[in-house]
Amino acid sequence: MRNAEWLQERLGGLGMRAEIVHVSNDGLPIVVGEWDGRPGKPHLTIYGHYDVQPPDPLDKWESPPFEPQIREGRLYARGAADSKGNVMAALKAVQHLFAAGGPPLNLRFLLEGEEEIRSESLPRYVRDNAQRLKSDCVLVWDGVFDEQGWPTLATSVRGLLYVELHASGAPNDLHSGLYGGLAPNPIDALAGIIAGLKDHHGRITIPGFYDSVVPTSPQELAEWRSDDANYAARIKAITGIRALDGETNFLARERTGSRPTLDANGILGGFVGEGVKTIIPATAFAKLSMRLVPDQDWRTILTSLEEQVHSLSTPGIEVRVDVLDAAPPVAIGIDPPTADAMRNAFLTSFGNNPIAVREGGTIPVTYDFQRSIGAPLVISGIAQADCAAHSPNENLTVDHYYRGIQTVIRFINELAAIDQ
Amino acid sequence: MRNAEWLQERLGGLGMRAEIVHVSNDGLPIVVGEWDGRPGKPHLTIYGHYDVQPPDPLDKWESPPFEPQIREGRLYARGAADSKGNVMAALKAVQHLFAAGGPPLNLRFLLEGEEEIRSESLPRYVRDNAQRLKSDCVLVWDGVFDEQGWPTLATSVRGLLYVELHASGAPNDLHSGLYGGLAPNPIDALAGIIAGLKDHHGRITIPGFYDSVVPTSPQELAEWRSDDANYAARIKAITGIRALDGETNFLARERTGSRPTLDANGILGGFVGEGVKTIIPATAFAKLSMRLVPDQDWRTILTSLEEQVHSLSTPGIEVRVDVLDAAPPVAIGIDPPTADAMRNAFLTSFGNNPIAVREGGTIPVTYDFQRSIGAPLVISGIAQADCAAHSPNENLTVDHYYRGIQTVIRFINELAAIDQ
Repeated sequence: MRNAEWLQERLGGLGMRAEIVHVSNDGLPIVVGEWDGRPGKPHLTIYGHYDVQPPDPLDKWESPPFEPQIREGRLYARGAADSKGNVMAALKAVQHLFAAGGPPLNLRFLLEGEEEIRSESLPRYVRDNAQRLKSDCVLVWDGVFDEQGWPTLATSVRGLLYVELHASGAPNDLHSGLYGGLAPNPIDALAGIIAGLKDHHGRITIPGFYDSVVPTSPQELAEWRSDDANYAARIKAITGIRALDGETNFLARERTGSRPTLDANGILGGFVGEGVKTIIPATAFAKLSMRLVPDQDWRTILTSLEEQVHSLSTPGIEVRVDVLDAAPPVAIGIDPPTADAMRNAFLTSFGNNPIAVREGGTIPVTYDFQRSIGAPLVISGIAQADCAAHSPNENLTVDHYYRGIQTVIRFINELAAIDQ
Repeated sequence: MRNAEWLQERLGGLGMRAEIVHVSNDGLPIVVGEWDGRPGKPHLTIYGHYDVQPPDPLDKWESPPFEPQIREGRLYARGAADSKGNVMAALKAVQHLFAAGGPPLNLRFLLEGEEEIRSESLPRYVRDNAQRLKSDCVLVWDGVFDEQGWPTLATSVRGLLYVELHASGAPNDLHSGLYGGLAPNPIDALAGIIAGLKDHHGRITIPGFYDSVVPTSPQELAEWRSDDANYAARIKAITGIRALDGETNFLARERTGSRPTLDANGILGGFVGEGVKTIIPATAFAKLSMRLVPDQDWRTILTSLEEQVHSLSTPGIEVRVDVLDAAPPVAIGIDPPTADAMRNAFLTSFGNNPIAVREGGTIPVTYDFQRSIGAPLVISGIAQADCAAHSPNENLTVDHYYRGIQTVIRFINELAAIDQ
């Protein structure tokens, strides 16, 4: 809420009509900024989010996550890259444009506070106000550079299905000496389920899971194949992973962008304090998430997942599947005039043309922008690849921040100059 | 330490020489009580422990675990059954004997504070003082009744191997959207290991695991087979489990006593707070324990376990195996005169003859009693089967407590009367 108020004040200070909109009683509000001082000129909507991932594990941060610190040309803070750095660069760009006589086109900011949780408010707002939100372009300003240092333009955004599995056996923890060998164990059951959801080739075993996956195009495959070993090496260097996991029959770049994935994100059960406790726990739970690609439908997959989970479970263990979050995948055309505007902006500010990528992450509202507003989407952003988004010591290079401001200014100017 | 001082004072108050012995710098002390006022009479050593299991999960207790409460004829508290109830019944019995002119034989209490953790002090003390601790009988007073309400005499005690598996992948948590599909996941790896350590028949896959297992005797099998369905039904009723797990080709009673077992006792990894965090965690760990039976050797099994864990792990994930606890299994002869003394004591106090059982739990020091002192072991106790040892709401029926005091008095009198 403090974030939303700060943004409202900031947008108002620029001369925009700024309001905080509570779409639901329990969600976080969206912040809307409007300026239509250029009748007859195009209308640009800029999307961003002010919420961030939880900062834990706290002990891995070199400086406190909510006390920004600049070290060696990088600003360290939770949200520095994902996505407050992007939002601030856009705000600063627009501030400069107002200072220089006003932006050359009509402008709208849509800033949400639920991108990292179950994004509901902004998608509903977009659906309910589709007519009023008509735009000539939507800039989804929440992206990262690729690991070679190139700016990116996304051609797809993965969807998400995030569930919690709750396994329960006996009503209470049991003595493992007295009942071990007879009592079903919820941790063992969850382990069997998680292990059973992938086969030895990394293929996800949920029935029908891949049925609607749009195959990677031959052009993309050809382009990726030539560079795939280098790509894998760069991913290893950035992340510190020692070996690549995942579907053995697919290119590394396919696995991070055009193939769906499944990961356990958390697990807890039984005694996890210091030392020994010889129990068979009563319950255990795990958080699992799937990244989905066009045209997978999370509702269909949820049904199959539930069946598969129950078939992989152990007799005597009940497993409940709770959905925590879901978002459809989106495929995006790269529309020449708007995409060219961003290409030119990046080329001038960073010296590199952006490359087309499949965005591995999920930005739930893109689906609603596409369905309800229909304007060309430009999905990009300024965080460098080693920004540690979602991880401890998240950071944004100060250089990217300043060049990012220039990029947004140039993009807006290029867009305004498009012959309509 | 408060427990040890309380016991020393109590034993001293009875007229015994009582001392607290610190065997090591970091362990918990043992309490030794000695009375040799009957020269020429047998010497009985009574073993018990004053430590208890951790009380968590605390929210499952109906009354605080360390504020004993009597409800409907049961005393609820952590340790009520395992094993402070046993220890108190023995102390009370001896108190009555002193009040009645002194016990009819020579007596020693050996009470430890490390039974539930890695028991090291008392076993070392027993080994180092074997000659001085010579006894005609060792009463290991830490047992439970069977689930039909019969007292028990153990013919074997399972050993233990308790390990912690630490899995680590990337140096930091990673964004599951950006790196999912490539980054190896420590939770997935642990799940694969835990699931892979048993096959679909519940058989443990550690190479050579069963090589030294002494087969159940034909007499035991015959006796158990006739009652096995009832036994399984009683276990279900007591524990609330909905289905039996474990080795499908063995009787339920074999699985709890004469077969070795493996269970995950705890697991933790990644994000386990409320809501969603889309990460591939850097680390995860699990606690695993094996109950061992004669003549399995935990050192041999540890070596095979380590190999099996590494062969089940995922490339890019390092797994470390830490041993938290280990104890050898023990087979016990039921020696006629001493066992008969306990049979008669139970028959008189409870109206039932004790039955021979294989104790599923582990009492580490029994191995050292057998090896270093060599006297007949009598392993029994007074807790009823539904005492919830190691679980929330642990309890002892008040009736068992009073009858337990009588049982110890009678056992001592019977033992003193044995013609030597």
